[in-house]
This record gives sequence, structure tokens and C-alpha cells, in this order.
Amino acid sequence: MWFRITSGIEYSGMSETINISLDVMGGDHGPSVILDGADIALVRHPDIRYQLFGDKEIIENLLNDFPRVKQASTLYHCEVVIQMDERPSQALRRGRNKSSMWRSIEATRDHLSDVCVSAGNTGALMAMSKFCLRTMADIERPAIAAIWPTLRGESIVLDVGATIGADAQQLVDFSLLGGAMARSLFGIDRPTIGLLNIGEEDVKGLDEVKEAGRMLRDFKFPQFEYKGFVEGDDLGTGAVDVVVTEGFAGNIALKTAEGTAKQLAEYLYSAMSRTWMARIGYMFARSAFSRLREKMDPRKVNGGVFLGLNGIVIKSHGGADGEGFAAAIGLGYDMVKNGLTEKIEQDLSIYHKNRFEADEENA
Amino acid sequence: MWFRITSGIEYSGMSETINISLDVMGGDHGPSVILDGADIALVRHPDIRYQLFGDKEIIENLLNDFPRVKQASTLYHCEVVIQMDERPSQALRRGRNKSSMWRSIEATRDHLSDVCVSAGNTGALMAMSKFCLRTMADIERPAIAAIWPTLRGESIVLDVGATIGADAQQLVDFSLLGGAMARSLFGIDRPTIGLLNIGEEDVKGLDEVKEAGRMLRDFKFPQFEYKGFVEGDDLGTGAVDVVVTEGFAGNIALKTAEGTAKQLAEYLYSAMSRTWMARIGYMFARSAFSRLREKMDPRKVNGGVFLGLNGIVIKSHGGADGEGFAAAIGLGYDMVKNGLTEKIEQDLSIYHKNRFEADEENA
Repeated sequence: MWFRITSGIEYSGMSETINISLDVMGGDHGPSVILDGADIALVRHPDIRYQLFGDKEIIENLLNDFPRVKQASTLYHCEVVIQMDERPSQALRRGRNKSSMWRSIEATRDHLSDVCVSAGNTGALMAMSKFCLRTMADIERPAIAAIWPTLRGESIVLDVGATIGADAQQLVDFSLLGGAMARSLFGIDRPTIGLLNIGEEDVKGLDEVKEAGRMLRDFKFPQFEYKGFVEGDDLGTGAVDVVVTEGFAGNIALKTAEGTAKQLAEYLYSAMSRTWMARIGYMFARSAFSRLREKMDPRKVNGGVFLGLNGIVIKSHGGADGEGFAAAIGLGYDMVKNGLTEKIEQDLSIYHKNRFEADEENA
Repeated sequence: MWFRITSGIEYSGMSETINISLDVMGGDHGPSVILDGADIALVRHPDIRYQLFGDKEIIENLLNDFPRVKQASTLYHCEVVIQMDERPSQALRRGRNKSSMWRSIEATRDHLSDVCVSAGNTGALMAMSKFCLRTMADIERPAIAAIWPTLRGESIVLDVGATIGADAQQLVDFSLLGGAMARSLFGIDRPTIGLLNIGEEDVKGLDEVKEAGRMLRDFKFPQFEYKGFVEGDDLGTGAVDVVVTEGFAGNIALKTAEGTAKQLAEYLYSAMSRTWMARIGYMFARSAFSRLREKMDPRKVNGGVFLGLNGIVIKSHGGADGEGFAAAIGLGYDMVKNGLTEKIEQDLSIYHKNRFEADEENA
């Protein structure tokens, strides 16, 4: 049961505990990094309880180093571990019902947990999530939403790679999902939404995007404000709270931005270590540089959110360290605390009720 | 007539003059910036001759400030100026045969010039270029190629927005066009080529991209080396010399990278001006920062190249200053000097001859 106590923030009424299932075997660096992340997140949010899925012997041994996590966890043994390079179809065949990945997702379906977090193979995680949780009624395809750091703060960008291509209706669905996530995460009443396109004029771009633009404008959604088309260079300025696109272009945009940030950091580093004067300058400006590094730290915004399924699944970056994995857990925690699922269900029902009535009127 | 004198560089045999037609009326800042750019480029390359198209009275007045350009130019009066926000279809109707944009393109078609440079409206420039120059035999669609600064130097990325969507054959054509441009511009014998995709494994991504990958691998092009799929974060590292993609994703990648660079420059600026210590550090490291600024200067790599047409057209950024426009002219100069058109024609004929023979064998 959920009820609103203060504006913008909701709390669980029955119990303050947030249950989070972890795929302890997922990720490039193994279980110790996952448990380290769980420990960091637990210090920040002592009301978390973990359901841990993975190799019992390995995890029990490691838990001796993390007494807080041990205290707050229930451990479920799973023999099968999904490999980082396994094909989704093979992972599903081999890991269904028994892998640590599957069972941590299943825990969400069975209400053992409120949210699942995994740093495992993205393709396998999406395939299993779709198979286990199914898409919500009225939603045809799930999306992966990323948190994008901007000059104004943060935006949400979706889809960044769940599926390739999207028709106009799916782009409208993504707008609803992203809008609900923005309300949960940023605590704003009516987030702004833009469609990623090439050129801001109505005449340019993909037909599906143009059609979705017409639908969003005509429907006049009460939950969010549609602002029109945005371009690639609007992502970093934070022109809108939510940027909606199909998965191919969204994934390329996300990775291009990551790559550009790394490239510029490299330029900066080489410029600052080139001469003695620059090195002295660096010494003086050290605290400024560490602020900058913090601002650019990808660990702070780690976590892709699978939206449109009957349950919330967070994908942490496979190469995340403890701090990065803790950020992904924190993201899941915030969204459960702020009733993301309830907001999505509410928004979808308003949309489909009104759409139905509009169809009736037109008939 | 062209012949090779030294390895990698070709020169015009008959005359050393490179003829460049300029749309003097195009761009956000008007004719004075265009002529300023022409002057800067002329100092670098005294063997340029300009064909200037635009309002005679305005240009003649301005040319008094640029005696070098005046000396090296022929001026052609055009009454019609294409506006920066004009729709391509309207621009074509209003400006065909008589606008400064059209006539500077036409000069290339009629061999009055070797290359045309315009800072005008991109959509109109592409529409007019297609209409006036037509696509090359065996090429269905033109592409816009961008020069992408990387950690290794520079790469070529195409298409960054000429057309939306591309089938496998068109992606193979873009590979040929981009490969020839890399040989002309970077002076390498056998450039490496990658297809932009989401995920590096063969099983992932768009069907058209996967099919193009198979075609590129099977054909074993002698002119370039196909390296497989690349992702958005490979663009900045310079993993390959040429990155091939369709125009929607390519445009979004380009603009996202530009936006991310601006965003990080903003972060850096605000970090460096925040405290006295940081400002002192900045003073010491000033020359390092100016190196960095130069490295990130978008003016240095200004110019999108229209490929696949019977003539070379360079699109300068509309907001370019004199230095930026000079870079676009320099790009055109280099490509003419190095025989880009001849290389493309040669590569296409090898490809289609071999493809024809392969078809014969299979028949």
C-alpha cells in the first residue's frame, strides 16, 4: 500500500523496508564488487533488505567481510551463472528458472523484492526480464532509460537499446514511461518531453517521429508537457526532462557521448601533464579538477532502467566498481520509494481511458 | 588531366590553379565573413582562383577590404539569395538557375570550378546539389561526410544527414565513397572502415547493417580494409579511418558529440573560475588550456562534404567565422588537389566490374 505523505515523495505505509534482489554473480568483476556496492548503498539507506542470488559458498565466504550486508540479506543458492558474452537466446535456454539472473528477476515478479539490480549481460537480462515479467498491458515493447547528466542537472533518455526501431505509438508509450520516471526521480509535477530528431522543424526527420509528435501534441497529456523535437546537441544542455527516441539512435547517442567525454578527458590530461608550468597550474587548481572529475564521474549516474515491464529491473554497467553498483542500487531504491510503478499504471490508465473516449466520440 | 608525382599526393598537370566557386551570400554572418575566409585560405594556398556568386554591389564594395581576393576572383552577379530557414522545395523553386547557391554549384557542373563551397542552408544546398549535379552512375543516394577529430587524429564519418535510412547496398556505396575520401585526405593507401552499430558481435543490430557487413567482408575490397562493427564510443578513439552509417543515426551521433564537447567545456570553465586557487592554477596552465582549446576548436574541422554527386560540394557551418570558412575552403582545396573525384570513379568502376564478373560466374 502506498500513500502520499509530502508533496512529490511517497512512502510505503505498511513497512519502511525496501526489498532489493541482487544478481550477485553478474558483472565483469565478480561477487565481491556487487557486495561492496550493496554495503555502500546500505549505509546510505539502512531500510534496504537484500535478496541475494548466486553461488552460496562463494557469497557466504565473502559476506564475512560485509557484516552489515550479511545482517540485512537472505541468500538464495543458484548454480547457473550467465556469462557476460552469452547470447540472449542461449542464456534464456540455459538459465531460465535457475540462474542467479533469472531468479533475481523472478523475485520481483513474485513480490519477494520491489526491484531487481544486475550488472550482468544486458541482452540476456532484457531477454529474461521480458520473458519473466512480460510487458505491461497496453505496452508493446519495453525500453531502457538512461540518466543523462546535463548542464541543468539530469535528464532521462529512452530507449537506449532495448529494441531497434519504434513506431509512433511506441514512441508515445515511451513518453508516458519516461514522464512517470521523471516524476518519480526528479520530483517534478509535469516534466517536459522532447522527441529526438534531426532538425527542429516539423517537416524534417523520420516519419514515425513526426507522427508521434502529432499524437503527443494533439492528446495534450496532463502528466507532462510535450516540447517538440530536440536534436543531439540538446541532450547535454538539458533542454527537456525526458528525451524519447528509438533504441538504435538512442544507443548510439549514449555511447557517442560517453566516448566524447573520455576523449576530452584524455586531451585535458595530456595538456596538463605536458609542461612544468601546466603541472604547477594543475597543483593549484587541484580541487577544481577533482570537482570536475566528480561532475564527469560515470559512476554517479550508473544504471539503465528497464521500463514497460511488470516489475522494475535496473541494469548496472558491467564494469562498475562498488561505488558504481551502489549508485544503481540507489536508483532502484529511489524509484520504489517514489512509487514509479504506481505512477506508470495511473498514467497509462488515464491515457487509454481518454483515448477510448475520443475513439467513441469519433465513431 | 591528373598524374601522380609523389606517392599519395597528386597534382594537376595542365595548370596549378584550383578553381573554387563560393556562394558568397550563404551563412549566418553574411558576405564579409565569407570573403574574410576566402582571404585566409588564399594566403595559405596562393594557387586558388575564386568564382564568386552573389549581389554584385555588396561584394564589390567589400572586396575593397580584401585586395588579394579581388585580384584572384571573378564575380558573377546573382539577385536571389536563399534564406537560412527556407524549405528545400521552396528554395529550389525560387532559386533554381539564378540564386547564388545554385550558380556556385552549377559552376562545378560546368567545370568552371573544381569544387563549390557554401555556408548556406544545408537542406537547400543538398536539394540543389542533387538536382543540378545528379548522383554518380551506380550511386543511388548522396551522403554528407564529416571530419571527426579523434585521439589518433581524424576520421571520416558518413552519412551525417543527407538522407534518412540506408539499405545494405547504399551502406556499401558509402564505404566506397568514404574510403576514397580517406585516401585523398589522409594520404593512406588502404584505409580501415567500420559500420556503426549497437554491439560489436555479428548477431546484434540493424538488419541492413548486418547485411552490409556480410557484403563488405565477402567482397574483399582492395581499396580499403573492412574491420567490422564499431559502436558510438569508438568514434572518439579513432578505431577506424572511416565510419559508415545511415543519416539519421549519423546526424544524431555528430550533434551529440558536439553537444557533449560544449557541455564539458562549460564544466571546465566553471570549475576553473570558481576559486582563487583555481584561477591561479589557470594562470600557470594557460598555455596548456589554449592548446586544449585549439584541440577542441570546431573551426579547425569545419566542412561537411557531399559525396556521390557529379561534383564536389562542401557545406561550411552556417555560423562559421572567417577562420572556419577558410577551413572549409581548405578542405575542398585538398580534395581537389588529391584527385578525390578520380579516386571515387576508379573505385566504383573496379567494384562494379568485379561485381558484374561475380554475377556472371554465379549465373
